[in-house]
Formats: sequence, C-alpha cells, structure tokens
Amino acid sequence: MDVDRSKVLVFGAGNFGSCLADHLGDSAHTVYIWSRDPKVVQHFNKFHHNPDVLRDHTFPASVKAVGPEFPSEEIIREVDVLLFAIPTEGVRETLAALKPKLDISNLPLLIFVNKGIEIATHALTLEIIVDTCGPEIAKQATFISGPSFAKEIVKRQPTSVSVASLSSEHADKASQLFHQPWFRCYTGDDPIGLELAGALKNVYAIAAGMSDGLGFENNTRASLITRGLAEMTRIGIAYGASPLTFLTLAGVGDLFLTCSSSTSRNYTVGYRLGKREKIDYIIKTLGSVAEGVTTAKALKKIVNDLDVSAPIATAVYEVLYEDQDVEERARWLMSLPPIRELDLPEHAAGKPAQRLLQKLELAV
Amino acid sequence: MDVDRSKVLVFGAGNFGSCLADHLGDSAHTVYIWSRDPKVVQHFNKFHHNPDVLRDHTFPASVKAVGPEFPSEEIIREVDVLLFAIPTEGVRETLAALKPKLDISNLPLLIFVNKGIEIATHALTLEIIVDTCGPEIAKQATFISGPSFAKEIVKRQPTSVSVASLSSEHADKASQLFHQPWFRCYTGDDPIGLELAGALKNVYAIAAGMSDGLGFENNTRASLITRGLAEMTRIGIAYGASPLTFLTLAGVGDLFLTCSSSTSRNYTVGYRLGKREKIDYIIKTLGSVAEGVTTAKALKKIVNDLDVSAPIATAVYEVLYEDQDVEERARWLMSLPPIRELDLPEHAAGKPAQRLLQKLELAV
Repeated sequence: MDVDRSKVLVFGAGNFGSCLADHLGDSAHTVYIWSRDPKVVQHFNKFHHNPDVLRDHTFPASVKAVGPEFPSEEIIREVDVLLFAIPTEGVRETLAALKPKLDISNLPLLIFVNKGIEIATHALTLEIIVDTCGPEIAKQATFISGPSFAKEIVKRQPTSVSVASLSSEHADKASQLFHQPWFRCYTGDDPIGLELAGALKNVYAIAAGMSDGLGFENNTRASLITRGLAEMTRIGIAYGASPLTFLTLAGVGDLFLTCSSSTSRNYTVGYRLGKREKIDYIIKTLGSVAEGVTTAKALKKIVNDLDVSAPIATAVYEVLYEDQDVEERARWLMSLPPIRELDLPEHAAGKPAQRLLQKLELAV
Repeated sequence: MDVDRSKVLVFGAGNFGSCLADHLGDSAHTVYIWSRDPKVVQHFNKFHHNPDVLRDHTFPASVKAVGPEFPSEEIIREVDVLLFAIPTEGVRETLAALKPKLDISNLPLLIFVNKGIEIATHALTLEIIVDTCGPEIAKQATFISGPSFAKEIVKRQPTSVSVASLSSEHADKASQLFHQPWFRCYTGDDPIGLELAGALKNVYAIAAGMSDGLGFENNTRASLITRGLAEMTRIGIAYGASPLTFLTLAGVGDLFLTCSSSTSRNYTVGYRLGKREKIDYIIKTLGSVAEGVTTAKALKKIVNDLDVSAPIATAVYEVLYEDQDVEERARWLMSLPPIRELDLPEHAAGKPAQRLLQKLELAV
C-alpha cells in the first residue's frame, strides 16, 4: 500500500463519508464511495455532486460512486483501505456482509469514523468488529474522531483529528493516508476511550443546549462543558479507558465543538427542551437523528452498572425519559453540595474494557 | 470565623473585585471594598453603584467602599477574610504594605483572584506571597479561578470556579464562604497549576482570536483550543504542576470561555492581529490591558528554560514580538509533521515548582 496514492472504498455517502471521500480524492488517492441509493450513485457520477448532502460542493473526478448493490468481492479486494462512515446501527450488518469477501491474507486498512453505542447491545464499534470479524481484524481496526464539521472539511478549513488503534502500525498508516496541512492527524492507542468520548459527548451537548435554552449564559455553559468533561473522564476511567483520552481532539475537542454550535443536532434537541418543547415533538420535527437521545439511555444503564457519579447525564436522562422539568433538574444540579473538583478513581475497575479486551484475546 | 456571616475586605474595585463583593454582600456577609480612587469610594457609598465598572448594577447596602488611603490596621484586624482582586503587578506592593498590619496569631483567610505572571520576576502570586509574607502565610493562601465573567456574576448567572490551596482546610473555608447554588466552588490542592493555567490561557486566547481573524472556522478553533490545552498541560507538567489541574474549571473551563468570547480582551488582540492590524496600534486603541501580551513574553522564556515544545505559544510570541506574519505562522503550525497526540512526560522535572516549594519550606 502506497499511503500517498491508495485506493479507498468509503461505505456511506452521508455528510461525513462524502467530505472524507472528497478530502482523500483531492490528495491523489483513488476513491470509491458506496451508496445504497441508485439515485445518489447516478447523480454523483454524472454531476460530481451529492444530491443529498454538501449540495453546493463539486467533488473531484477521482471520487466515483458505486452501488446500490453491496460492493463486489472484486472491488473490496482491489482497494487498500475500507473507510466506514455509516451509522453505528448499520455497522454489524455491513461487516457481516463484508467478512466473506475479505482476503484475510491481505487485509485492507479498516478505518471507522462512525460514533455512538449500538442500541440493543451497548457495544462500541470495536466490539461489533470482534463479534463479526474476529479479534485479529478488530486489533487492526483504526478509529478517527475529532472536531470536524463536514461543511468545513470540504472548504479545506484547517481541521485536526485523533486517530487511534490498538495497533500503532495501523494508526500510523491511517494518519499518513489522511494527513495534510489542512487535515492534521494525531495518533493514539486508546480506541475504547476515543469511541466512548465520541458517543458520550452527544449527551453533554444536549445538556449545553438545555442550559442555553433556559437562558443561562457563557459562565454556565463553560462550567457545564467542564463538569461534563470531568464526568466523561470519570465514566471513562470506570469503563477502563485512559483518562488522558478525554484531553484529546476526540475528547475535549469534539465536546467543545458540539456544545458550542447551534447547528449541532444534539445541542438543538437540548436547546428546544430548554424552551419547554416536548421531546416527542422535537424528534418528529428535527428531520434527522440526534444520537445523544439514544446514547443518554444507554449511558444511564452504563453509569448504573459501573456505579459512577454522573449527575449531568442523569439529569439529561430524566428530562428525556422521565418527563422531569428541565429547569427543576438544573436547580437540582446547582443544589448539589460542594465537592473536591477532580475525585478520579486512582485504580479503575474498568470492567467493560477488560471484558472487551478479553474478547480481543489481549491480556489485561 | 462564621463562614455564613463573615466580614470581608476586598482589595480592588475593578470588574472582578466588584462582582465578588456583590456576590458576598448578597449572601449575608459584610463586605468592605477598597479603592485608591476617592471618587469611586464616594460615588459607591452614595449611590451603591461603581462609577467605573458594572455601571448598570446596584450593589447591596451590605457592601461599603473604603479608601482612598490604604486600609487601617483596625479594619484589617476586624475582618475574617482578605480578598485580593488587584492586578498581579500590584500584589507585591500591596502585600508589603499589608504585612505589618496583620495579626499573625489570628490570620484572616487570604484569597487571591488575580491572574498572571509578575513581569519582572516571572513569579506566580504564590511566590510573591512567600517573598513578602513568608512561607507560613503563603501555605494558607487560597486561589480562586474559573470561567466567570463579572457581568454574568452580578446577574446571578450560574457560575462555577476552582478553589485551590496547599492547605485543604483553607480551600474548604473559602469554598464555604463563596458557595451558593448560583456560585459553585470545587476545591483542589494545586495552586501552582491553577495559577499557571490562569496566566497561560490568555496566550492561547490570543491564538484563538488570530485564527478567527484569519477567517478560519469552528473546526480550526476547536483544534487550536485542544492543542493549546495539550500544550498548557505539557508546560504545566514540566513546570511541576499536576496535569489534572488543566482539566478543571480554572484550566479547560476558563480556556473555553476566554477563547470563545469576542468580549475577551486577549481574544480581541488576536482577532485584530489576524486582520493584520499592528500590535502597537491595537494596544494603543484597546483601552485596557491584555495580559496575554505580556504573558506571551514570559512564557517564551519559561518554555525555553524548561526545554518543552510549545509551538502555538511560540507562534504567538513571534507575531507579537518579532513582527512575523500571522498567516505565515499559521501555515508553519499546520506544516508540522504528524505526531502522537499526548506525549506527556511521565516523570516531570518540575524545577520551577520544586524551587517554589523549597521557598515554602515544603519537602519535595
């Protein structure tokens, strides 16, 4: 594989898949982007535009759409890189369909940019990969996350991301594939923390939106983000992730972006809850999924299982699922007694990560 | 000392001193606020308004202005708390004048809310306290910092701050003094890290302003803040502070607030540099001091002495003091090779903190 001139197949022609296909196509790679929608495939190849997302953007000729059939074994074995930019709920099915077509002796680089926790199982994507493709493939899987609005990436606005894998060799390869002056990659070895941060931040973005919707100002939002980060870090340690991962672009960087942008879907859900709209009506009228709403439910179970203190996530859950009043929950948060600021557990149990690492046949 | 009904003397009637006097006065404490300016003292006591800052705000009758003479030994010995809300450059002189008036056998609680590094010595306030009042008083000194715009505090907008001291007893007392549902205090034991974060963040706020001034968007700002936080943490560890302090309200919380507010002076300096205004003209027309400009100079010397990598702080210094082009320095930052994301030193030298702790007669 020549990391400067690779062949890449992108699964998913949504916002993020499209902008990454564009970025790679613009950097001398050959890129196929797969869509299930025949209209998208035809339109893309005829006009070099995606009819659904980033509609003002013209894609380079080096990016070709494929589909609507699932990519053939031929194309899968031809490419150096498989980039998964599909919703987490679709990853299990896609990998199950993909597995028989992979050449195990000559595996492509597998890169995942989806975020979120699988609803039925509470699994991270790393676990879905083990379940469907086995530990050897999962150990090589690489994850990219960070503060990266698609509409800014296609404008070549300077963007930086975290790139993590249990295999530093594969993280380095993915970093080299994507790295450009306007798209900087920083590598790490904690994909569990990276994935957890990417999922959890959406719940705290709902909280930040609620605060703004209630009319609170800058001091409140900054303290909510900071206390949210402390809470995410505490949950991460209990889960078995590295606390430092929450300091990365995939952690605090993405949290900051999502919590301070009124164009973020999760923030918008929170803002409208703060304005006393009902969650059913918000979901019906939002026009797209806000992952934080489902993640808040999974997170409630995770923090209960781990027995870790997470008052902000709990308040968000209670407003979303127990019809509690948003202002009353804000007052409850403010009424909590003063505490030490960073009471992080020194030695984390980290049972979920241990269980996952055992599945991966990695000693812990 | 009754922490619910204390007598407090606030040094400094600027924005932050005034809003804290207001907060404490509103919480059943008796508050004196000292100003060197006879007009401020008279106006304040006659109209319950500060003629210079927060001009729309009416202060409670429990806050009384004193001055313009330096507070008498009588009043200093009468109060339970001395709160210092003066610029760092004035602390040495004020403490030298204060020291002979203190009753060592019955010391008041000493709380400092100034931020910054003393220009001539590069000393933190903790070191200025040792120099002027000796180690026993410095060990009790307590520091408050966090995301806290004064104009929001007087509106009782929910605000949270870090409260740190080498003495947990004194941190707890200060926390109890200030804590209210709308003003939450979180305690910690790393005043060196808290002070360092409060000073350094102003340099990164200049960088965030530059980025916005150059026309870069959300992805870029979020990555600059995150890489700035990593850089602050790296400098903090090399200095001898705790890396976790940079995760606190005084660290990442205040960094967020300062970097995302167009009303922040340091951000404004950076923004105007990004628009290619000259620094001399910016300083002349700004109307108030931007501490980040002087801190950038001190920081350059500190990172050189500590031999720690700080490319963002270096770029800010070169634009401010070496007349380098802001866009060219941005391109230089973007051209740096890909690296591991969090290469924090495992065992920090921490010489500056060690030197300071020796002055404090604390074993290290």
